[in-house]
Amino acid sequence: MTRLWLSELSAHLGEEVEVAGWVYNYRSSGKIYFLQLRDGTARLQAVCAADDVAADVFARCGEITLETSVRLKALVRADDRAPGGLELQVHDLEIIGRAEEYPLQKKDHGVDFLLDRRHLWLRSTRQEAILKIRSTVETAIARFFEAREFLRVDAPLLTPTSVEGTTTLFETDYFGEPAYLSQSGQLYMEAAAAALGKVYCAGPTFRAEKSKTRRHVMEFWMVEPEVAFLDHDGNISLAEDLVTAIVRAVLEERAAELETVERGVAALERVTSPFPRISYDEVRKLLAKKGFDLPYGEDLGGDEQTALAEEFDRPFAVEKFPLAAKAFYMKRCGDNPELTYSFDLFAPEGYGEIIGGSCREDDLPRLLENINAHGLPLGPLEWYLDLRRYGAVPTAGFGLGLGRTIMWICGLRHIREAIPFPRMLNRFYP
Amino acid sequence: MTRLWLSELSAHLGEEVEVAGWVYNYRSSGKIYFLQLRDGTARLQAVCAADDVAADVFARCGEITLETSVRLKALVRADDRAPGGLELQVHDLEIIGRAEEYPLQKKDHGVDFLLDRRHLWLRSTRQEAILKIRSTVETAIARFFEAREFLRVDAPLLTPTSVEGTTTLFETDYFGEPAYLSQSGQLYMEAAAAALGKVYCAGPTFRAEKSKTRRHVMEFWMVEPEVAFLDHDGNISLAEDLVTAIVRAVLEERAAELETVERGVAALERVTSPFPRISYDEVRKLLAKKGFDLPYGEDLGGDEQTALAEEFDRPFAVEKFPLAAKAFYMKRCGDNPELTYSFDLFAPEGYGEIIGGSCREDDLPRLLENINAHGLPLGPLEWYLDLRRYGAVPTAGFGLGLGRTIMWICGLRHIREAIPFPRMLNRFYP
Repeated sequence: MTRLWLSELSAHLGEEVEVAGWVYNYRSSGKIYFLQLRDGTARLQAVCAADDVAADVFARCGEITLETSVRLKALVRADDRAPGGLELQVHDLEIIGRAEEYPLQKKDHGVDFLLDRRHLWLRSTRQEAILKIRSTVETAIARFFEAREFLRVDAPLLTPTSVEGTTTLFETDYFGEPAYLSQSGQLYMEAAAAALGKVYCAGPTFRAEKSKTRRHVMEFWMVEPEVAFLDHDGNISLAEDLVTAIVRAVLEERAAELETVERGVAALERVTSPFPRISYDEVRKLLAKKGFDLPYGEDLGGDEQTALAEEFDRPFAVEKFPLAAKAFYMKRCGDNPELTYSFDLFAPEGYGEIIGGSCREDDLPRLLENINAHGLPLGPLEWYLDLRRYGAVPTAGFGLGLGRTIMWICGLRHIREAIPFPRMLNRFYP
Repeated sequence: MTRLWLSELSAHLGEEVEVAGWVYNYRSSGKIYFLQLRDGTARLQAVCAADDVAADVFARCGEITLETSVRLKALVRADDRAPGGLELQVHDLEIIGRAEEYPLQKKDHGVDFLLDRRHLWLRSTRQEAILKIRSTVETAIARFFEAREFLRVDAPLLTPTSVEGTTTLFETDYFGEPAYLSQSGQLYMEAAAAALGKVYCAGPTFRAEKSKTRRHVMEFWMVEPEVAFLDHDGNISLAEDLVTAIVRAVLEERAAELETVERGVAALERVTSPFPRISYDEVRKLLAKKGFDLPYGEDLGGDEQTALAEEFDRPFAVEKFPLAAKAFYMKRCGDNPELTYSFDLFAPEGYGEIIGGSCREDDLPRLLENINAHGLPLGPLEWYLDLRRYGAVPTAGFGLGLGRTIMWICGLRHIREAIPFPRMLNRFYP
């Protein structure tokens, strides 16, 4: 008999099957054991009655502890009270691995206790649901770009370059030379766009920021498309379409998981493009009305982002930031060289920035001026300047933070739950 | 008029269109310019005749240099001699970015010259084809696992643990503590499999190996599935099915690119599962006949791999390596505890190992014994041991090296061409 996954059982109603999994809860009423079984694909109740099984099998049920792994032979029967409409009637049971006293038994473990045991915490119903949503988000992203004929190009992580400033870099010794863990694949994607037109990378990026907020981790996946000949409006539209496609996929494929994490879907169903667009200048005026004095040229902080989000019931874009507020590679606006063709996309409900993007400065003298103004060394950027020397074209792109996007979609209070093994200040174990 | 990608033009035969791209080659016959245009999606000839355009447009053609970027208005017309059957008849032309003298003009640049200019080298016909095949391989992998309902779980890269030995680690300072760049996501995938059943990760891994072979780089993407309750034979079958699916996708979707890289498809068309399986013991006998003395317990070196590959016309698996030859986590065989339920999958034609996999030791005392025998510190592995303490189950999985797989599929002599921005000994620029 081939062992089946629990998710396959609905096609085997009335049949005798073999399954395996972990007992995540159980109770007994003397003559009968109710085992709550999970195998990663589904959760199901298995009922083992003394009348149905050999005496030694029933005795074995008494040895079961939380998270003990078992292999069962059982009948699949319908049960209207069960979540999936199915239940197992056990005929044989074998213990694969009996669990020691499981440390995650209480409802009120502190978060440090749980993070120390992240490898076990993942087994909980809620974390399982979040991980499934995360996987769907990643699949939706891959599908989105495949449908639009983007090519996936993997950016390197060991780099000689810093894109977002030098103070927040993880450094390593590369056979005698200092190398840095990449903070963004963007510069490499610009080179790839000049070769392949429409490209994206999706991979880990790093920020050694000594910040301990609920939106920050040290290692996080970013998705970074870059497109040759794309303009500012087209760039924002691409971001809108991507976010819309992600949310739609989660709504369609992960309704049960959204319910598990107690995420109301109404807010997600409102996510249809186009999103509201508001300029940096308008943002400052709007914030002033709310009592925030955002000095011209400063980026939006967490509090400002939250206040701003009160104005919108769906994601919204803030566009055309001043050059001073943003990175050296951003292209200046044609009608106002103090501003840039840039945008940040914010999730509603105060979940903050999930995307930052821009057109890239394709004019070599202006780019050099920006690099100098930012005090960046030219040497490691020489190759990047070549992209302007040999057939410069307008390109645009953005970076979507995967963890923050999942945090918003799942309605999580903290980004740490959106990442399988989060790396935070003073935490990189397990 | 909306600008079109060159790949879209076949649907616009006989129409006036706007396109943009780079001139990767050109010639002139006095009254007519032949511009070879590329935009990443396709390559096409644009013909600009003095009779068809205004005098200033024709004059502008004289300013074009290699890799100059241009925007055109042109008629799409059929041309049977052209590779895609299409040609453009230019009516207007604007130079976007005139290129300085392009450094990659000769056929015989040395590889160091090219690697220093990898950001430009990517634009060549051959590198473009390899990158497109790489993207298809990654898409095929995502589709394969999605169809089998695996969940994608991203493994962390900053880790306290070393899996494959401590001498080849990149180290970084994690706020005062040493952290290491991950060499494999496997241990994390084992934790994830205990939560989610069928999982995989795909991401960068690192080896600080002072080796300068044509199969080694310091940073490479690995694809690592891990499945609860999977046995040795099922593990090899999963690897066979994955490799077969990848090769089939490339054959179906990248025939033109395989031709560009001059890869005969006959060898790829033979890639159908099941693959030959041969035990480690049989390998030693076979190698002895070929004059190789492989000491018992040693892993296969490059020369042995090449000699062995002469025996097979398709990928083949070597299985059941001695415990001494392999990593601490490999499960011992039931019938011979000196051997392990392990396998390496080799590409034919001498391209070497592309997959290594095993069942994982689920017996805690044996695992501890192995860890001690390998001289590994227990501390950073404590969490991993928990997987055996709390509901141990048999799990199995493997790691597929993306670069080596692409090297084989494309028939490349060196892995450096299979990676967008390869990191090699003493090279992490650009």
